Amino acid sequence: MTIPTIEAFHLYDTTLRDGSQQEGLTLSVTDKLAVARHLDDLGVTYIEGGWPGAVPRDTEFFVRAATELELSTARLAAFGATRKAGVDVAEDPQVRALVDSGAPTITLVAKSDLRHVTGALRTTAEENLAMVRDTVAHLVGLGREVFVDAEHFFDGFLHDPDYTTSVLVAAHEAGAAVLVLCDTNGGMLPHQVTEIIEDLRSRLEAAGAGEARLGAHTHNDTGCAVANAISAVRAGITHVQGCVNGYGERTGNADLITLLADLQLKMGMDLVPEKTLAEATRISHAIGEIVNMPVSPRAPYVGASAFAHKAGLHASAIRVDPDLYQHTDPRAVGNDMRMIISDMAGRASIELKGRELGFELADEPELLSRLARTVKQREAEGYSYEAADASFELLLLDELGRVPSYSSVESWRATSQLGRDGTLETEATVKLRADGGGERERRVAIAEGNGPVNALDLALREALRERHPEVDEFELRDFKVRILDSQHGTDATTRVLVRTSGRGLEFQTVGVGPNVIEASWEAVFDAYTYGLYKSGVPGVSHAGER
Amino acid sequence: MTIPTIEAFHLYDTTLRDGSQQEGLTLSVTDKLAVARHLDDLGVTYIEGGWPGAVPRDTEFFVRAATELELSTARLAAFGATRKAGVDVAEDPQVRALVDSGAPTITLVAKSDLRHVTGALRTTAEENLAMVRDTVAHLVGLGREVFVDAEHFFDGFLHDPDYTTSVLVAAHEAGAAVLVLCDTNGGMLPHQVTEIIEDLRSRLEAAGAGEARLGAHTHNDTGCAVANAISAVRAGITHVQGCVNGYGERTGNADLITLLADLQLKMGMDLVPEKTLAEATRISHAIGEIVNMPVSPRAPYVGASAFAHKAGLHASAIRVDPDLYQHTDPRAVGNDMRMIISDMAGRASIELKGRELGFELADEPELLSRLARTVKQREAEGYSYEAADASFELLLLDELGRVPSYSSVESWRATSQLGRDGTLETEATVKLRADGGGERERRVAIAEGNGPVNALDLALREALRERHPEVDEFELRDFKVRILDSQHGTDATTRVLVRTSGRGLEFQTVGVGPNVIEASWEAVFDAYTYGLYKSGVPGVSHAGER
Repeated sequence: MTIPTIEAFHLYDTTLRDGSQQEGLTLSVTDKLAVARHLDDLGVTYIEGGWPGAVPRDTEFFVRAATELELSTARLAAFGATRKAGVDVAEDPQVRALVDSGAPTITLVAKSDLRHVTGALRTTAEENLAMVRDTVAHLVGLGREVFVDAEHFFDGFLHDPDYTTSVLVAAHEAGAAVLVLCDTNGGMLPHQVTEIIEDLRSRLEAAGAGEARLGAHTHNDTGCAVANAISAVRAGITHVQGCVNGYGERTGNADLITLLADLQLKMGMDLVPEKTLAEATRISHAIGEIVNMPVSPRAPYVGASAFAHKAGLHASAIRVDPDLYQHTDPRAVGNDMRMIISDMAGRASIELKGRELGFELADEPELLSRLARTVKQREAEGYSYEAADASFELLLLDELGRVPSYSSVESWRATSQLGRDGTLETEATVKLRADGGGERERRVAIAEGNGPVNALDLALREALRERHPEVDEFELRDFKVRILDSQHGTDATTRVLVRTSGRGLEFQTVGVGPNVIEASWEAVFDAYTYGLYKSGVPGVSHAGER
Repeated sequence: MTIPTIEAFHLYDTTLRDGSQQEGLTLSVTDKLAVARHLDDLGVTYIEGGWPGAVPRDTEFFVRAATELELSTARLAAFGATRKAGVDVAEDPQVRALVDSGAPTITLVAKSDLRHVTGALRTTAEENLAMVRDTVAHLVGLGREVFVDAEHFFDGFLHDPDYTTSVLVAAHEAGAAVLVLCDTNGGMLPHQVTEIIEDLRSRLEAAGAGEARLGAHTHNDTGCAVANAISAVRAGITHVQGCVNGYGERTGNADLITLLADLQLKMGMDLVPEKTLAEATRISHAIGEIVNMPVSPRAPYVGASAFAHKAGLHASAIRVDPDLYQHTDPRAVGNDMRMIISDMAGRASIELKGRELGFELADEPELLSRLARTVKQREAEGYSYEAADASFELLLLDELGRVPSYSSVESWRATSQLGRDGTLETEATVKLRADGGGERERRVAIAEGNGPVNALDLALREALRERHPEVDEFELRDFKVRILDSQHGTDATTRVLVRTSGRGLEFQTVGVGPNVIEASWEAVFDAYTYGLYKSGVPGVSHAGER
């Protein structure tokens, strides 16, 4: 096989469109923009943002993306359908919405299985071909790059290869840049993919469309989404579609990160820079946090267990020659070999993390060991520093004896109550002592809120305001709750992640506790501490008293 | 390819041995016996029970299995290693423990990668061959069926095919019934598996071992465990190893249920009776409960989402011809097509959903329209019925005027407070009026909890208990919180999903509100209502009063 390079190969991500078909996954426009930024960091070639015109949220996504989304390598694609049967393409509002989205690339879904043309679209074989031709030609005429997703391609080809091929030929002749072969129902196995693509190639050649560029879009219904995409690549396709973390309808789409790592590390393709691939674990988990679906510990390459060894018998052998026990170097994807006996991996990543934050820890081995122990212990309690960089930095500052302090907490209380008249009231009281002050510096504040965390946030802000009016410049922008031990229902451990912005900063803090309110309080309190400190507000240094 | 039948093909399960290497998975002997019974129901050919002699629990498993485990089709295998270097096989206590286990089949792991022989075993190439020969011959001589797991086979073959082949030849000549090619580190891709097996075959033939029976043991580190096993089957192997639900070290072993379904439904192999395959979903989930690791909703064939469709545009087409939208009949594996109710849902998908729940709504167009409007409006408020089937059913029952009621809420209150002494206290009060009762039927309950939701749950349960003692049979198993509009931080809308099980049911309810406590209360209250109603506890019908 020939090995395509990045110029000649598309890594097409559809997390924001097909991925969001996953049960339980709902993304706000802000979430989508945040995911898109991570996808760009991952080095994907295309980001399919959604279906403008059909889904209001997706229409808004493209509007906001135009001003809020700066992409360094990726290109934005809008997804939509061919024109309606019997309608002039220029008059079709769905097609117009695609144009209006401003996306430079438009991916059109086209029926390529004759049974779906007659059964679902309820139109004729010929009209469907005209719909494909018209829509592609119309959009190409407007200067857009057009890809065609041949829906139900594999099933259609097995049913009626002539018709399915004719749809692809029509799309190609009308100017489509890529013909994407979709295993929409996900029932294919790798060898079938190979056989069908080979058969298709010879039919395309016979139809004078032999030079058409092909892509593949696979689902995991047989557990073979990634393998099917690899089969397609080996059969010569140069465009793969997938979703980060394998999100998607039913069993999910091909996991784009696994696929990228396989293609690059196992098949020697040069798709993204090495440094970028080493961000894969971080990006996978960051997106998992945004969509609130944690990455499976068993996820290939990026899962928490992907390079974990139950140490036991082979521990020393692994230490001597780890390469004999791992299929690839975990650092290539930003993961770590993890073993019970060794905190080497922990130290290395903390050193890296410290450097990211501007602290050079390499020549402070004792500090590194202490930090590694603290992180390990806190992660065992449920903390997660993957997303909460600000909390990690506070931990590091604490070890360095440089934790700033603005106020000490004396007590707080939050009450929610549904009255007999059906009204719901929530109120919080916060008592602080401003640091460096005496009893006269005590602050008591009461606030009502929409919920207990909101009320506590408002009361805390009120209590801090007089001495530190800068607190009003911060806004708590997102607030995520995860239950860690799902065996215990409402008495399980809770982890809360809070995202805060203001004074030129945007950062996340984490809190953990059996009580969602307590965990939230910790994350919110740390957010103010971190925000004030990082934006240069002087506090009192209280080493070790956090 | 030829299609082997069950007599000629081994479905070898290693959930109890390799599967239990998964991080976080620990099985008691009783658990292991229970899993083994389910595996037998699934129709696997072999059940690898563990490593007697090396793991005390596994030794006990074989002892208890001898009297407590009646298998109908499966055969029990014990796993162990070849004799130690420099030791007489008859004197090796580990080998003796294998014999003593009484297992009719013994699977021996043998080093087949020369680097591991010298680096990890620290012995010579020749002594390793002798260890394989001696141990196999010894056990065969004692009347046991012996399989040999060639550890690190693929990596070893790529490194030094001559040596790796010589290990297999030694095992074959000593009487091993199957030579199992293990991708121990999991780094293979399907085409490599094919190429290596073809190369191995010709080497075995040249060595006079061409008739040796081959097996495959694959891991999912490249996301290709199932595909690799399928490649191996297509290359002629007639023994596959895997674990139910893909459990296993790191990224897991090949998922034996996915593999079975692929081989039988996609490749036409006749491995287990149709009726048995139709138990796959039940068995997968039952084992998930025993090992305390729930089946991923995205699991192929058996996951809760495996045949779920986000309704929207295609619902009417799906209604006409479901086979156009699913890769196989979900009943073949005991699963169901499921329509997900989401904000794209129209009447058609609500009708289908109703039918799933046992309500025939086709001839009630007005009811359907009303329901569709309600769902749309509530989803705009933040409700999501994708996962919360129970809440959807309550909505439907409400429209039908059949909502059961067990108690009316008068008021509730939840307080969390951090005292000056640093202790955190959470307390809830719930006041209910039992439905159908007068003032005397008022119930007031107070409870402390780990958090406000837990305290409310306990107080509500306490208030319901006297009249409906069945509440104690329910357990809140999972509790998920999602903040819907991430623009507003802590005063955003909150959605809470609660998963409850008990009285033979498992279901999810949803609650929404600006206040996490209020949203949780709604989901928890609905959970008790639904649980009591569905398990046949009579309530009072209060049409429209929910």
